[in-house]
Amino acid sequence: MDPELAIEPLTAERFAAFGDVIALSEMPDFVINQGYCNRFHDLARLESLGAGARLGISLFQSQRRTSPYMLDMMERHPLGSQAFLPMSMDPFLVTVAPDEGGRPGRPLAFMTAPGQGVNYHAGTWHGVLTALQGPGLFAVIDRVAGAGENLEEYWFETPYSVAWS
Amino acid sequence: MDPELAIEPLTAERFAAFGDVIALSEMPDFVINQGYCNRFHDLARLESLGAGARLGISLFQSQRRTSPYMLDMMERHPLGSQAFLPMSMDPFLVTVAPDEGGRPGRPLAFMTAPGQGVNYHAGTWHGVLTALQGPGLFAVIDRVAGAGENLEEYWFETPYSVAWS
Repeated sequence: MDPELAIEPLTAERFAAFGDVIALSEMPDFVINQGYCNRFHDLARLESLGAGARLGISLFQSQRRTSPYMLDMMERHPLGSQAFLPMSMDPFLVTVAPDEGGRPGRPLAFMTAPGQGVNYHAGTWHGVLTALQGPGLFAVIDRVAGAGENLEEYWFETPYSVAWS
Repeated sequence: MDPELAIEPLTAERFAAFGDVIALSEMPDFVINQGYCNRFHDLARLESLGAGARLGISLFQSQRRTSPYMLDMMERHPLGSQAFLPMSMDPFLVTVAPDEGGRPGRPLAFMTAPGQGVNYHAGTWHGVLTALQGPGLFAVIDRVAGAGENLEEYWFETPYSVAWS
């Protein structure tokens, strides 16, 4: 097993099996506010499952990670999606993995462009939030209440490493 | 009627009648990710009313407004809340008004601190998004589908003005 993960740019196509890229596109869906504002509409599939489940807005304030990042754990939320929206124009690192029989397979690593966010679909294996620069402030849209266990973690025997410059 | 609105700093107390201030506070609700991340949990009252109603994540890309800003129209969404989360660390102008018999009363003007967002409660009169600097990029969490008319506008005979330096 090669423990080094190459980083790719984040694109909707490459990320489609894991979730949504929340980003501007060439054409807005609506032009609003007397022409002053473009609206790019309904960009994420939000999920919140189980009795009493509810979506909410939270803030995450994260320390910055340095290169090389050792990816030793991935987690998933079977009962809800989870969106990360950066509140500064800084790229961040996104790691996801396909499920292989109830545990993460070989992860993929993506670097966002400034202004891109992501939404992990329910059940997608992902690494924890990895801010690389800036204030590390993110708005998170996820399931904030509801019955049932919504967190599953998997620790790798040998961590993967992700390096950037 | 004094057409000039003074600008106040945005605080949760002053904004409580209109919506939620989405911002860090002194104590996180949870410390997560092996101590690397503070979570400030469930900061906004999200509302999405009517048959088939659903919340979503959209992006707004707004032109910047210059001082003095002429506030000539306010709007409200009777069937849903609307949250604005800046995706850059730039302040923006927030205008709201109490309802007076089905139309906006005298507006209040607030300047956000960097990293603050707002969530207008359903039915709150507010001015349109007014970005003042930076890329003008915002994530918006609001009702993206559902039956019923969710927009009401009111045009002032005499606009209010809001000036900053």
